[in-house]
Amino acid sequence: MKSSVQTIINDPGDFSYVIGPYKQPVATVSPGETFIVETADAFENRITSPDDDITQIITLPYVNPLTGPIYVEGAEKGDTLTVTIHSIEVTRDYGVSALIPEFGGLCGTVFTRTLNPPLPPRVMLHPISNGEITFSEDLDVAAIPYEPFYGTIGTAPELEAISSLAPGFHGGNMDTADVCPGNTIHLPVNVPGGLLHVGDGHAAQGDAEVCGVATEIPTRGTLTVDLIKGRHVATPRVESDEFLMTVGSARPMEDAARIAFYELVMWLESSYGIERLTAYQLCSQVARVRLANMVDILYSVVAKFPKRYIPRR
Amino acid sequence: MKSSVQTIINDPGDFSYVIGPYKQPVATVSPGETFIVETADAFENRITSPDDDITQIITLPYVNPLTGPIYVEGAEKGDTLTVTIHSIEVTRDYGVSALIPEFGGLCGTVFTRTLNPPLPPRVMLHPISNGEITFSEDLDVAAIPYEPFYGTIGTAPELEAISSLAPGFHGGNMDTADVCPGNTIHLPVNVPGGLLHVGDGHAAQGDAEVCGVATEIPTRGTLTVDLIKGRHVATPRVESDEFLMTVGSARPMEDAARIAFYELVMWLESSYGIERLTAYQLCSQVARVRLANMVDILYSVVAKFPKRYIPRR
Amino acid sequence: MKSSVQTIINDPGDFSYVIGPYKQPVATVSPGETFIVETADAFENRITSPDDDITQIITLPYVNPLTGPIYVEGAEKGDTLTVTIHSIEVTRDYGVSALIPEFGGLCGTVFTRTLNPPLPPRVMLHPISNGEITFSEDLDVAAIPYEPFYGTIGTAPELEAISSLAPGFHGGNMDTADVCPGNTIHLPVNVPGGLLHVGDGHAAQGDAEVCGVATEIPTRGTLTVDLIKGRHVATPRVESDEFLMTVGSARPMEDAARIAFYELVMWLESSYGIERLTAYQLCSQVARVRLANMVDILYSVVAKFPKRYIPRR
Amino acid sequence: MKSSVQTIINDPGDFSYVIGPYKQPVATVSPGETFIVETADAFENRITSPDDDITQIITLPYVNPLTGPIYVEGAEKGDTLTVTIHSIEVTRDYGVSALIPEFGGLCGTVFTRTLNPPLPPRVMLHPISNGEITFSEDLDVAAIPYEPFYGTIGTAPELEAISSLAPGFHGGNMDTADVCPGNTIHLPVNVPGGLLHVGDGHAAQGDAEVCGVATEIPTRGTLTVDLIKGRHVATPRVESDEFLMTVGSARPMEDAARIAFYELVMWLESSYGIERLTAYQLCSQVARVRLANMVDILYSVVAKFPKRYIPRR
Repeated sequence: MKSSVQTIINDPGDFSYVIGPYKQPVATVSPGETFIVETADAFENRITSPDDDITQIITLPYVNPLTGPIYVEGAEKGDTLTVTIHSIEVTRDYGVSALIPEFGGLCGTVFTRTLNPPLPPRVMLHPISNGEITFSEDLDVAAIPYEPFYGTIGTAPELEAISSLAPGFHGGNMDTADVCPGNTIHLPVNVPGGLLHVGDGHAAQGDAEVCGVATEIPTRGTLTVDLIKGRHVATPRVESDEFLMTVGSARPMEDAARIAFYELVMWLESSYGIERLTAYQLCSQVARVRLANMVDILYSVVAKFPKRYIPRR
Repeated sequence: MKSSVQTIINDPGDFSYVIGPYKQPVATVSPGETFIVETADAFENRITSPDDDITQIITLPYVNPLTGPIYVEGAEKGDTLTVTIHSIEVTRDYGVSALIPEFGGLCGTVFTRTLNPPLPPRVMLHPISNGEITFSEDLDVAAIPYEPFYGTIGTAPELEAISSLAPGFHGGNMDTADVCPGNTIHLPVNVPGGLLHVGDGHAAQGDAEVCGVATEIPTRGTLTVDLIKGRHVATPRVESDEFLMTVGSARPMEDAARIAFYELVMWLESSYGIERLTAYQLCSQVARVRLANMVDILYSVVAKFPKRYIPRR
Repeated sequence: MKSSVQTIINDPGDFSYVIGPYKQPVATVSPGETFIVETADAFENRITSPDDDITQIITLPYVNPLTGPIYVEGAEKGDTLTVTIHSIEVTRDYGVSALIPEFGGLCGTVFTRTLNPPLPPRVMLHPISNGEITFSEDLDVAAIPYEPFYGTIGTAPELEAISSLAPGFHGGNMDTADVCPGNTIHLPVNVPGGLLHVGDGHAAQGDAEVCGVATEIPTRGTLTVDLIKGRHVATPRVESDEFLMTVGSARPMEDAARIAFYELVMWLESSYGIERLTAYQLCSQVARVRLANMVDILYSVVAKFPKRYIPRR
Repeated sequence: MKSSVQTIINDPGDFSYVIGPYKQPVATVSPGETFIVETADAFENRITSPDDDITQIITLPYVNPLTGPIYVEGAEKGDTLTVTIHSIEVTRDYGVSALIPEFGGLCGTVFTRTLNPPLPPRVMLHPISNGEITFSEDLDVAAIPYEPFYGTIGTAPELEAISSLAPGFHGGNMDTADVCPGNTIHLPVNVPGGLLHVGDGHAAQGDAEVCGVATEIPTRGTLTVDLIKGRHVATPRVESDEFLMTVGSARPMEDAARIAFYELVMWLESSYGIERLTAYQLCSQVARVRLANMVDILYSVVAKFPKRYIPRR
């Protein structure tokens, strides 16, 4: 497959730090086209040592650089853009994680403002080889499997330019491990070309991404885009062999869960003919949930319906 | 094992609708003792037909009847009570689920108060046989596996009597599917005897229990209780072959997640020697989360640490 | 008025630390009766010096001692108990405030759990004389007017015993400055006698009670109780010359606001004939809100409708 | 004063629906300059009858049109822009309010997603004359005083373009009645010129703006802008004769309150020399709070410190 793909290369001077309609596309692809996209890690690949000072490296709002916008020919407002991920390769022999003061799930933040002294900054490098991640050479824990995904993927809103740190109805920084090879993501098209942005590769991540940082990596991914003309998705959907999934991003977290389940119920009704209140009651017996992040500008929750329970008639 | 156990039988006139220190024990057991406990379903076994009117059957605060208190000899304030679940059998050939107006994850409630018209009430019976649940005879979906657990298990606070509908630091209505056969639950002891309460059997439940009701069943369970003297748990813990788990219950949901992860990090530090900020950063790479309920008086979130990542030295 | 009142005296060994149906009444009063009640401050009057160690004085759950239960003759489930406050006198020449680690609006707490180092404990004594409070003899700020109220007032639930630190549908620790001389509080009756509890006198308090502690005082209050037979209030109401007020207590804070406004709208419809959606739209133009507390087990929000906008026909 | 001011006139084809750095300024003003600005109402002045269908008039994201950007000469990143409001006149003889389905404080919304049937749409016109508003000619309620303010005022972020419906650190749709004649607003400067946007005039509004809509009016306002060079405000501040005020905008609402109080405490420390924990404890005795909105994309809470308590030395 790769022999014929068009490669899209990052221009390190041309990252996107917002997802919006105002930046010129870095590339154009066609519906059905398979292509390669490269992404820098969330820190612009600038961390090279555990001694690096994360507070110096982060210069808001220039964090979480995205590759894009990628213009998809023929995409129009009201369509759905689908992105099938074939592979995500890491282009470096290590990942990075960090503790960032005033950022994370178990500390005061710029939103959950407290007078407590902040946690200290800290950087760790995590060697990656042979499909395995070494968390620490000091702490003898089992290797972590390399299970890569894009932390951030999204399409441009019509007028807003949304920070690359934020998830939302447009996708964005959902930190959802289901945005991984083998799965297909559905995103809303709000402007001509859709304007796909992608980045924030993770070699591994715990549910909730509790300290705020996963095993951050630069990547080379192989993707296929396509369009569902004239059908709008209100919030990102992900489809795997096993699950129909919807992603809700909001605060408080229960609103993220409400959005995700509401959209899942509506999907089951509109596409699979299960009356909505029956779908609601069925989800209460069989649904699965991933808490994708509890650290970003909005929290993300994934509601999952096992496809084995789709009605057979 | 069962041949020698002491059976504890529900007295249908003596359910507990709160978990507190004010009711006489229904039975006394010894540390290390294995015993059988029977529980009614969340509706006092009063739903027998899909034509039953759930709004007539529910008479607050007399909902979610619990069996207990069970007095554990020797339990004193500051201890931890452990409950190992060997089996949970359903004692009826069907489970029940329902839509209850102003209760559930996708509707206005007594807390998230709205002026919208309520959803209609609805009752479903779900036949259970051969380890499988039939969701509906009208909707041809695959059978749901029988995977029973206790929705409610807890010990008495020192002074409070907490509704059987509420989860909290004492356990209670966590609706956590990990409270299942094979696993051990750790609960705080706040009063002499600990005063264990158990009930709310579920034959199956989706993560989040989104409509507010699982496949509700009466049960007969076989349990072993034991004590960890002089060690206090701040919030319920669950241990399985695969995971160390902590349950946080709070609103908003992010606070439930914060409690769960904080306690998990502290557990990893105090019992496994992983310095807390390292544990925090490690959880960010490998933890799993279950959203247990998004419908009860407090929401419950389970933070899970895979035991395979416990340091080998 | 006071010459004929029955005095109710605290028995220092008999405080209530929960509001529930399980404790014997300390006194009985009749509907229409005016009586005097004395209350200790939230720390049992045990702070006498700025050098006291607040962390030693607080021994959970024995905090925020209440006087009660007070049995009101003839009160039955489904009634409303009204309490008119004539006066609240301070019975000491100083108030107390404090910083309590892991408690307050701008720090990590047992719910909003963080790994940050805690804030330090601190105690201040605030001299009170001639209707004025001296915040600090070190910091030259203007005197604060003595504007006393009860931080905690409530009636017993039917089965629950609720911590004296928690507000809720039963009233409780609302920390609402409108519970003050001149105003009438409406509380639900759930058990025979209603079982009124009162305490937590405040000489002054900022909206939100942001550090978690007001100017805490022991008090002697003069109250009149009465009953509205057969009319239930879903949540506490307060009536002043100027405002109809409803108190919502919940987390997150928006749910507290939703409860308060929902009940205000329903009150305007049921008692004043303003159709509910019109009342909703009118409140959007003229309502006032007090954020009563952002620190307790539940947050409390007061929705206020200026009586001058009650329809004149 | 007005005789010499430069008038800025809306170009009806050139409203801003986001606050960002991407649109050409509509005017340029100098520090210290007094000028007139006109704004359309939140519905682009398109509602002229109670029979208008609000669901047809609202075409997201083209709602809440703002006048701007206004370029302030010499404003640079890191400065603070101050806006003193001299007057806000209504330029029509009526205001408009409405019920908008899936928008408001007491209904399911796109965030607090529910399956309940929506509330009906409704439009009301409110005659304004002689400084008084007539809520309804059908419901005989007292006239509402004309107390105008800008619901929306803000400066451009560096990279983001934020919906005119959202409040935030940049100001925006705070719906804060303290943004009124006589007061001075402090806003952060993130880009050259600051890029002030203003709109969403309200003739009156209840705290919380509970149904989501105030008495919406087109306005002609007289403002003076100025700069505080080299001093950054983290969140909007408002100063009146009586109060120092900070505005926090976030979800859940407690985070909005945390931001507001944190910034108020920091202001008291940095500008008035009150050590931050003392300021925290003092605010707990004397602060006031306005719940500005409970309906917008983020909720806004105003923390207020009475200037009479500023230390006299």
